[in-house]
Amino acid sequence: MNIMKKSTETIKFRVRYQETDQMGVVYYANYLVWFEMVRTEFFRSRGVAYRELEKEYKIFVPVVESHCRYKIPLRYDDLVTVIADLIEINERYIVFDYEVKNDGNLTTTGSTKHVFVNQSGKPIRIPEFVLKAFK
Amino acid sequence: MNIMKKSTETIKFRVRYQETDQMGVVYYANYLVWFEMVRTEFFRSRGVAYRELEKEYKIFVPVVESHCRYKIPLRYDDLVTVIADLIEINERYIVFDYEVKNDGNLTTTGSTKHVFVNQSGKPIRIPEFVLKAFK
Amino acid sequence: MNIMKKSTETIKFRVRYQETDQMGVVYYANYLVWFEMVRTEFFRSRGVAYRELEKEYKIFVPVVESHCRYKIPLRYDDLVTVIADLIEINERYIVFDYEVKNDGNLTTTGSTKHVFVNQSGKPIRIPEFVLKAFK
Amino acid sequence: MNIMKKSTETIKFRVRYQETDQMGVVYYANYLVWFEMVRTEFFRSRGVAYRELEKEYKIFVPVVESHCRYKIPLRYDDLVTVIADLIEINERYIVFDYEVKNDGNLTTTGSTKHVFVNQSGKPIRIPEFVLKAFK
Repeated sequence: MNIMKKSTETIKFRVRYQETDQMGVVYYANYLVWFEMVRTEFFRSRGVAYRELEKEYKIFVPVVESHCRYKIPLRYDDLVTVIADLIEINERYIVFDYEVKNDGNLTTTGSTKHVFVNQSGKPIRIPEFVLKAFK
Repeated sequence: MNIMKKSTETIKFRVRYQETDQMGVVYYANYLVWFEMVRTEFFRSRGVAYRELEKEYKIFVPVVESHCRYKIPLRYDDLVTVIADLIEINERYIVFDYEVKNDGNLTTTGSTKHVFVNQSGKPIRIPEFVLKAFK
Repeated sequence: MNIMKKSTETIKFRVRYQETDQMGVVYYANYLVWFEMVRTEFFRSRGVAYRELEKEYKIFVPVVESHCRYKIPLRYDDLVTVIADLIEINERYIVFDYEVKNDGNLTTTGSTKHVFVNQSGKPIRIPEFVLKAFK
Repeated sequence: MNIMKKSTETIKFRVRYQETDQMGVVYYANYLVWFEMVRTEFFRSRGVAYRELEKEYKIFVPVVESHCRYKIPLRYDDLVTVIADLIEINERYIVFDYEVKNDGNLTTTGSTKHVFVNQSGKPIRIPEFVLKAFK
């Protein structure tokens, strides 16, 4: 029997005033910040607190590629849902897809690709306990 | 005779302390901020001050897509060069490619695609004076 | 009989990776962002959605003074509590005091002073419905 | 004879689009970022590169207090001058005053107080070579 683990994580929050620009909408770089927030929760809810990964294991997970499509602008105080979906994982890298929603509407999509590196920045094989926790 | 206008623009500045994160490198969303800075100069040096575009013409140039590849991390106080290259322009959208360099090394590449919209957010045909100035 | 309304508002959230700097702690400007977040909730919970104030009434509430004392640094993923306390309100301005706490410890204090202005930036008398809602 | 060293440092730059908010002006937390930028230059021009201080000497200069008065709002693309003035220095802390100017007008003032700490965050006596360089 094969029990599939859920590959997604969801966070909800309100758009900060600071996140808007003079166009009156969320500044486009902030979506990457939100992607990082939902990744943090993805890691945590699978027992791999990202904070511990850095502190205990001296393992870091830098981004090597990011992509974002902006369909509908978001505004101050909007109640936003961000969903991360781990769509690829192997020994060398992981890829997340993201969906940003407001009031049921898909406003933004994106993806990020990450490697795992040691303290001196050298890429390493993704640790077994991470592979196990994420798959 | 066909005199080609230069399609690139370059800015130089130092990495701010605020732009780093606890990994000790530039946080990945900040590259999009830098892309916007060089776009501002691209517009200005072609006689189309983006600020006037918004204020006088009520025309806005939101991003509809962004992409970034992170090759070499950048650090606090690094002297950074960002180059924008307008690689596509037509009546409906423009596309910029970006290169980020430090000390001669290419550290980051990216691209953004933009449409032009009016005050109510409706896409418009790119104004003739912009097409003329950019081509 | 005089029923005092509570003058405080509280929010809770986790420190974002983006909010850290290379010292490994929360960058000092971010506390002002957090103060703004708790102000938003302060307004909302008293029936004066700040968003509506701007959109419906064309009233804005810029800061004219800010102050912050940093006692204990905060780190990525810390669970943070921010409390706003409206300590002064009259026809011309309002003053908030703030406390930031982590795990029961007071880490940061601050204050901001705000005026109310119309769309052209002119200071106005604070509207009666705001005074009533806040007192 | 007593030759006074200049106690001020000045930087000039343009307001980034990202630094604005939906009020159309510079978001209030960004002034603290600018204060940090001029401090970096203050250190550098006196031969104490802040970057080296951290890397070579494992000495950090966190802020313990900040204050800001917002008089005139600044806007996207404004050419801004920020001046830092070291108004107090002793063995335990330093205090900077700041002025932000646009087009000759004083728009914002502020101050920050800093201590020097070692890698474990313990306050230390300000090193002799810093005192000498700054006085």
